Amino acid sequence: MASSRSLKVTLTYDGTDFCGWQLQPNGRSVQEVLENAWQSITSESIRITASGRTDAGVHALSQVVSLRTESRLDNPTLIKAWNANLPADVRILDAIDVSNDFHAIRDARRKHYRYLLQDSPLTNVFQRRYVWHLPKRLDCSAMCSAAAALVGEHDFAAFQSSGSPRKTTKRHVFWLKVKRTESTSLTGPLLSIDVEANGFLYNMVRNIVGTLVEVGRGRQSIDWPKSVLASRDRRQAGPTAPAIGLYLVNVAYDPK
Amino acid sequence: MASSRSLKVTLTYDGTDFCGWQLQPNGRSVQEVLENAWQSITSESIRITASGRTDAGVHALSQVVSLRTESRLDNPTLIKAWNANLPADVRILDAIDVSNDFHAIRDARRKHYRYLLQDSPLTNVFQRRYVWHLPKRLDCSAMCSAAAALVGEHDFAAFQSSGSPRKTTKRHVFWLKVKRTESTSLTGPLLSIDVEANGFLYNMVRNIVGTLVEVGRGRQSIDWPKSVLASRDRRQAGPTAPAIGLYLVNVAYDPK
Repeated sequence: MASSRSLKVTLTYDGTDFCGWQLQPNGRSVQEVLENAWQSITSESIRITASGRTDAGVHALSQVVSLRTESRLDNPTLIKAWNANLPADVRILDAIDVSNDFHAIRDARRKHYRYLLQDSPLTNVFQRRYVWHLPKRLDCSAMCSAAAALVGEHDFAAFQSSGSPRKTTKRHVFWLKVKRTESTSLTGPLLSIDVEANGFLYNMVRNIVGTLVEVGRGRQSIDWPKSVLASRDRRQAGPTAPAIGLYLVNVAYDPK
Repeated sequence: MASSRSLKVTLTYDGTDFCGWQLQPNGRSVQEVLENAWQSITSESIRITASGRTDAGVHALSQVVSLRTESRLDNPTLIKAWNANLPADVRILDAIDVSNDFHAIRDARRKHYRYLLQDSPLTNVFQRRYVWHLPKRLDCSAMCSAAAALVGEHDFAAFQSSGSPRKTTKRHVFWLKVKRTESTSLTGPLLSIDVEANGFLYNMVRNIVGTLVEVGRGRQSIDWPKSVLASRDRRQAGPTAPAIGLYLVNVAYDPK
């Protein structure tokens, strides 16, 4: 048997037409299209592990995955061939050799997510797959102030959806920024919510966004998210924001 | 017979999945989906005239169309009902009453088009339907300088594709700007080419872009587009840039 090596691969995908990261019997998953394309170029049937399983409709600017291969193709050639065999909504950005004990989930130290919202009446057809559209303007500075209470190490149980329980609900949010972004050549102004933490509970970003939006709508006070956090009770938080606006931006690892 | 009134309607569309503006026997046209949706809400079978027939794949940030109707529904209600019956890649932005002699093509005075290019190696999956992707960096300032020769009233015969001849090939380009745009929360930096004129020949913007890109690639000198213009010979110009990056941004009319 040939000796195998491990690769750490960075990729991006438009989550709109995927049932999510994970293999599903009747859905088109990112994992499946990646593994099938890999088989086309190497004839290897492999299992690819992602840093986290993004849900249906969630996008990735930069997802990290790990795999083991016996292929001796050099990495630039592998990237090129893999992209040539992948559909247009997934692109491999980079692939580097790592030690065989590298594991995309276990070794992840920080994750950065972004959520994009459009808060103006007119629909922008070019954003219809990529932002959560709310017709009324949100109070961005109230959301900013409210977000501060969620930074730091806390028990985020109130922001965890049921269905994928973790051992502990304590997480460290390093920073959480709400800001209005500039108009661009193609799109109107958006509201972006960026958050980095040492890990996230199930739907944690979408539940934080749903909660901050209640503040932005003026339905809840600036102090409310702090009391939601303290309650550790999911029923206290706002609704889960839809997947359409959520992006995995970066996954950081310790240097090996 | 009830009295009819005329409407000037502004709309936006993502051209990716359309065969263009005009009705086609075997294609999905913007005109067809608009006319079908109109019939669903008013039972009227009408003909809608656009300021210009965008080609397959060309987008509109703001297209203007005119129509005659006997419907007495107020305009906000019409907009709402129309949007509710349209697919997600077309949205009505506005509708106002105009005099019965208004004509979307004949009365158009100025049109503004934008072309978006990505000139960096990594594909951005979120732009794959919306920009022309060239892997190598273009010389933006050379393109800027070259573009200046095309501003003003000129015979643009060299930039007219065959297939849709006009009476005269003289047009007045009011301004033509090439600039690098900022990165955004979702996309990397783009190169945008904006041009406004009193009218455009068939494929004129795409032929101008294709010509400027030859300069940006360093294959032609800054003075070359000026000599292409002077030649009045289509064979002298650069290739036609693909539809994917082209946007109708605005159509201006005289006040009535």
